[in-house]
Amino acid sequence: MLETAPNRQAATWLASFARSLEAGDIDGVTGLFPEDCYWRDLLAFTWNIRTMEGRSAIREMLGETLARTAPAGWRLAQDATTDGGVTEAWFTFETATARGEGHVRLIDGRCRTLFTAISELKGFEEKKGPSRPLGVRHKAERSRETWSETRRREEAALGTSEQPYCVIVGGGQGGMALGARLRQLGVPTIILEKNARAGDSWRNRYRSLVLHDPVWYDHLPYMPFPENWPVFTPKDKMGDWLEMYARVMELNYWTSAACVAASYDEHEKIWTVEVDRAGERVVLKPRQLVFATGAYGPPKLIDLPGADVFEGEILHSSQYADGRRFKGKTCAVIGAASSGHDVSVDLWESGADVTMVQRSPTTVVKSDTLTELAFEIYSEDALAGGITTEKADLIVASMPFALMPEGQKALYDRIRERDAAFYERLAGSGFAIDFGHDETGLMMKAYRTGSGYYIDVGASDLIINGEIGIRSGVSIERLTPKGILFDDGSELEADVIITSTGYQSMHETVAVVVSREVADKVGPCWGLGSGVRNDPGPWQGEPRNMWKPTAQEALWFHGGNLALSRFYSKFVALQIKARMEGIPTPVY
Amino acid sequence: MLETAPNRQAATWLASFARSLEAGDIDGVTGLFPEDCYWRDLLAFTWNIRTMEGRSAIREMLGETLARTAPAGWRLAQDATTDGGVTEAWFTFETATARGEGHVRLIDGRCRTLFTAISELKGFEEKKGPSRPLGVRHKAERSRETWSETRRREEAALGTSEQPYCVIVGGGQGGMALGARLRQLGVPTIILEKNARAGDSWRNRYRSLVLHDPVWYDHLPYMPFPENWPVFTPKDKMGDWLEMYARVMELNYWTSAACVAASYDEHEKIWTVEVDRAGERVVLKPRQLVFATGAYGPPKLIDLPGADVFEGEILHSSQYADGRRFKGKTCAVIGAASSGHDVSVDLWESGADVTMVQRSPTTVVKSDTLTELAFEIYSEDALAGGITTEKADLIVASMPFALMPEGQKALYDRIRERDAAFYERLAGSGFAIDFGHDETGLMMKAYRTGSGYYIDVGASDLIINGEIGIRSGVSIERLTPKGILFDDGSELEADVIITSTGYQSMHETVAVVVSREVADKVGPCWGLGSGVRNDPGPWQGEPRNMWKPTAQEALWFHGGNLALSRFYSKFVALQIKARMEGIPTPVY
Repeated sequence: MLETAPNRQAATWLASFARSLEAGDIDGVTGLFPEDCYWRDLLAFTWNIRTMEGRSAIREMLGETLARTAPAGWRLAQDATTDGGVTEAWFTFETATARGEGHVRLIDGRCRTLFTAISELKGFEEKKGPSRPLGVRHKAERSRETWSETRRREEAALGTSEQPYCVIVGGGQGGMALGARLRQLGVPTIILEKNARAGDSWRNRYRSLVLHDPVWYDHLPYMPFPENWPVFTPKDKMGDWLEMYARVMELNYWTSAACVAASYDEHEKIWTVEVDRAGERVVLKPRQLVFATGAYGPPKLIDLPGADVFEGEILHSSQYADGRRFKGKTCAVIGAASSGHDVSVDLWESGADVTMVQRSPTTVVKSDTLTELAFEIYSEDALAGGITTEKADLIVASMPFALMPEGQKALYDRIRERDAAFYERLAGSGFAIDFGHDETGLMMKAYRTGSGYYIDVGASDLIINGEIGIRSGVSIERLTPKGILFDDGSELEADVIITSTGYQSMHETVAVVVSREVADKVGPCWGLGSGVRNDPGPWQGEPRNMWKPTAQEALWFHGGNLALSRFYSKFVALQIKARMEGIPTPVY
Repeated sequence: MLETAPNRQAATWLASFARSLEAGDIDGVTGLFPEDCYWRDLLAFTWNIRTMEGRSAIREMLGETLARTAPAGWRLAQDATTDGGVTEAWFTFETATARGEGHVRLIDGRCRTLFTAISELKGFEEKKGPSRPLGVRHKAERSRETWSETRRREEAALGTSEQPYCVIVGGGQGGMALGARLRQLGVPTIILEKNARAGDSWRNRYRSLVLHDPVWYDHLPYMPFPENWPVFTPKDKMGDWLEMYARVMELNYWTSAACVAASYDEHEKIWTVEVDRAGERVVLKPRQLVFATGAYGPPKLIDLPGADVFEGEILHSSQYADGRRFKGKTCAVIGAASSGHDVSVDLWESGADVTMVQRSPTTVVKSDTLTELAFEIYSEDALAGGITTEKADLIVASMPFALMPEGQKALYDRIRERDAAFYERLAGSGFAIDFGHDETGLMMKAYRTGSGYYIDVGASDLIINGEIGIRSGVSIERLTPKGILFDDGSELEADVIITSTGYQSMHETVAVVVSREVADKVGPCWGLGSGVRNDPGPWQGEPRNMWKPTAQEALWFHGGNLALSRFYSKFVALQIKARMEGIPTPVY
């Protein structure tokens, strides 16, 4: 590494940090941080996903974890950089049980943010790239079992004569990404998918659905989309890709398999999972159970007074697949976030008359703008500059949640300036726009409440042009036989009402499958405890319950969009693998 | 680029070359080559695949092609290197219709070998990476057709209401790689696969088959194998990958579709292709017809006198799928090249008693040795050094066929030394070993005759240990009711005889499908005209008829192993695309 000033500064800090850690000198360590500091750790010290905020939190964490973690071998991994007074550096290290990587941001020689994450378990390294498996042995032997025979035997045995160590409920991108990682780590796993085919979780959605995030952000582990893949993936193409992925990754993927019930024996430390597999009842006995049932739980149904007298049809957006049967009908869509917009466009395209009923303001961002400004590190330009998807994931992960609003606010200041004319026109249509509680925009809404935003892929122009009607600033009083009566006395006629009112937390799925008691013990998923509406405090510093140990032993939640599924599947898989191998995983 | 000596030397040469070309000064150009020189051109100047050997061949070629090619913009593409007195440099250039890339080897400032290849057609660049398609438009529109609707419409129309521009006979790796390239270039294409499922050409082969080449050599275009893929792919896994590839690449791939007959209307310049599609007769009218039916044509059946009195079963290795039905039987395998060895091992593994009848010596190389010594530029080490598969393909292509024997002989000198003990043991078993006519080994045999070699993945040890019997140095006199009588009077008892006697040339498939007349006009495929047995002269400088215009207009041959299918599919696709777009393609 060249003798540059940033390298010198980073190396000096890292050496002091390593020395203090090795000496068990916790005060020496905290002295390397200013008072206002953050240490985000993914499993390396805490066997948890936690951000320590401030010196005393760091002191407390190290007091409990330092001795058993035995960190060592801290080394700069690439040239450090300095920009605007902040020196950034990547490093690697090891602990007693794992190898890790991390990132540091130094200001005035002290550490403002530190990020540490394990990358692999010692002795259980993944076989890929230079260490990929050789495949079937090149040697004649009479007892040879071919690859397909081995696969068939495994498929037949797992879940009958042999029990999986892990069961994943839900076979969308979350379940598949985790399943692929677990297979790669040699953890016997069954994925339960309620639909008939892998990929149906995408195919079954409304006809016009296309991914809102660009391809560079959406890769699954091990096997990136090919170079001729479109920027925005249509839902059926995504479905086909997932179906292919399950096969190529050799996942034990059960289709038409619904998880009916599950209970945990705290004494035997084993789950009993009841599965309806194409009408047949199968009982599985895994040690670990992961819910990867999507970013959300069951649909959130709202109480509509007068629903009993309404003469038309009421359905939730989750029941909505194809707008063509509503051609010529007058439709009211209640809810103005992502699904409300998408359903409205699909209805309009199908020749329905659509009015969107907006109950609270929405954060809207044009897709082009978001791709250009917010996905800079997930792009061809980034790739050309050496920032792979894996690196981009680490860059994102290196930023503590507490500091995200600052950057997001700056991003949305730019977005509002850039698209000022668009926002003016949209507001002029009567549509209520906001940028979140603290003007931090879409991503913070996503982490905090998972609701209230829309990436504009065409609906906003229809609203601006009056093609999709908008009723905002009014509350629903009740339904009438012919439509909706608002609290200002106005009425909206409707043959069909589609409630695009979102979904409940994932832990409500646990309530259905396991028990209310376990669901309540675990509590809601997502949300940061930011204190904004629908995300009550106290501040957590991390999304609740996602990808990390929960209050229920051996119960995990995994999910999120494709990017989160990709990145965090690694850490869920490493936690499960460590438990399978009996590696101590004391959770801080 | 740094001012190094190799860069200066390469830049000087390239500038002189460019100046002479621009001035139309052909003598000036040839003056930059020594007498003993080679210029291999893939389509850039010749719209053909040709190697000009010696100055006068270069002079003649330029005399016909230079003016219309109008080459320009010659630029070094990366730092030149010098090793052992040879300076090597990569460059880019353009012609009137295409952009190209190439490579030069300079000795004493003059060009020993030159390689020029087009990389894309101007105005018809592939949409990938930074120019990948956006996908379905993010815009509401009532006439929107979704991706899956478009695909279904295309599949329904192509071959019925719309005719493909190109038909590819054969849906193995060759047909698929070419199909993917053509789709990427927007050439409407149908692939005809006689088997029921994509990938069956691999699945249907004998049970123990595993690819003999390592994964880095085997990637298909656009979508490399994932990083956790095994080094040596089992045949059924390969079948699954191909099936997935066809879907992900959105190929119009007809299964259970046999090409029954084809004839070309020289006046209308159109093919009439008769297809048996799952029992239904379909007639296609493409402009271009590609045979991608494998590296070889129909099985080569040998005349066995006394076959009528033999009481056992005789089959060709192409009919052999699973040895388990021969358990306990005494089997004679006639032929000691790849399929002879593989069939023998499969029989032995199945519990049969096997003797291999070797009619002529075989080149045997241990798989490990080959992977380590011959695939250096297709490996993780190469990747780590920046040599991608694409680059490795170009490195291989830059070497004229006439100069290959020299390097191959040196390679086999190393191999024989390294594995001397192995060869001694193998010869001691009575097995006859050779290293080809001029001691150049396996690859030259592959290009010259496609026969007479085996990459050892286990059979040789069985032969050494006597587990597989060997009869060599004798000729078959005739069959008896109970076995084989040799010319030395000895007999070999056999319940089953499997003739592993190889295949005929691909043009024999043309004789069956099109006509004897067209097949004879086109002549055999493969072979270099090296003058060795089964590869009669005159010297061609390139494989016969492969990947380039043939004596029959609009008839093409494509194929080879995975690596050749990958690399040359690009050039077949560009030739077909150019014809579709009416770009002049005067063939030299």
